[in-house]
Amino acid sequence: MVILGIDPGTATTGYGVIKIPDDILSREFKYDIELITYGNISTPKERLMQDRLNMIHGELTSVIEKYKPDQMICEMLFFGANTKTAIMVGQARGVIMLAAAQHRIPIQDYTGLQVKLMVAGSGRADKNQVHDGVRKFLGTPSRRRNKLKVNWKGGHLDDAIDALAIAICHVLKLVAK
Amino acid sequence: MVILGIDPGTATTGYGVIKIPDDILSREFKYDIELITYGNISTPKERLMQDRLNMIHGELTSVIEKYKPDQMICEMLFFGANTKTAIMVGQARGVIMLAAAQHRIPIQDYTGLQVKLMVAGSGRADKNQVHDGVRKFLGTPSRRRNKLKVNWKGGHLDDAIDALAIAICHVLKLVAK
Repeated sequence: MVILGIDPGTATTGYGVIKIPDDILSREFKYDIELITYGNISTPKERLMQDRLNMIHGELTSVIEKYKPDQMICEMLFFGANTKTAIMVGQARGVIMLAAAQHRIPIQDYTGLQVKLMVAGSGRADKNQVHDGVRKFLGTPSRRRNKLKVNWKGGHLDDAIDALAIAICHVLKLVAK
Repeated sequence: MVILGIDPGTATTGYGVIKIPDDILSREFKYDIELITYGNISTPKERLMQDRLNMIHGELTSVIEKYKPDQMICEMLFFGANTKTAIMVGQARGVIMLAAAQHRIPIQDYTGLQVKLMVAGSGRADKNQVHDGVRKFLGTPSRRRNKLKVNWKGGHLDDAIDALAIAICHVLKLVAK
């Protein structure tokens, strides 16, 4: 099962693709998560908003067609965010959900709080703790760790790593059921 | 010049198409606004959100390809709306802005407050006063009034009439410049 996690934003939409065995639920060791790819879709802020949304939709469509995810997971904003942020993130979410619908891929939400709880073990986890959680889950078996070296501690890839965290959160929810 | 106004929403997205003469700014009488069509795109609430967004995008694409607007206008939420509403409206706005970008049509926002001010003359205008404003601007010359009879006082066409108000607001802004 291929899972595409997405951290939506108009400036940067992070994405991360992971794969789990189809029989994961019947396995003794349930965290055999393989990293497939991760990256950012960045849009220049001097471009018009509709063109930026078009770029996100177009690039995400390419990712979907290349990696053929069975499930998409998108981060949901926490309630209490300000209206402007919520509209902007909502617009990005709109074109992401559309891309899912156009490829008949189910898409599901988790909040940042759920992701922190599941991946880092605490709703108060900071960014580094979440990233450490991602590394932990993707670092077994060790050969896979190599794929994650580049820019791992982030900076401009923070959103991509958050997207991986969102995808991993879904696996942990599946396994916990 | 053909203008497509849109009142975005996931349950109902209203749209209204009007036409103004290309030389409107050089005319003495500047409110020669012709009603082309108006309607609702409604999506069933039992469907998944991504499918509802897909329906909005698909039906709006048909409207765009049929009426070939030169300009699209979309209502912007007022600040202070709650986060959940803002995300939902943002998602609908996202697929609407995408449809505009895919057809290379400029799209612009007005807030509900601006629409009330311009179309009904007061930021405190209620729905009926806004609808009366729409009727006034589209009712001249009188032959055009006939097109507006059906369900004019609204109910389920409220969103479509709001969309006409948004399109008319743009004309008034153009003329006022």
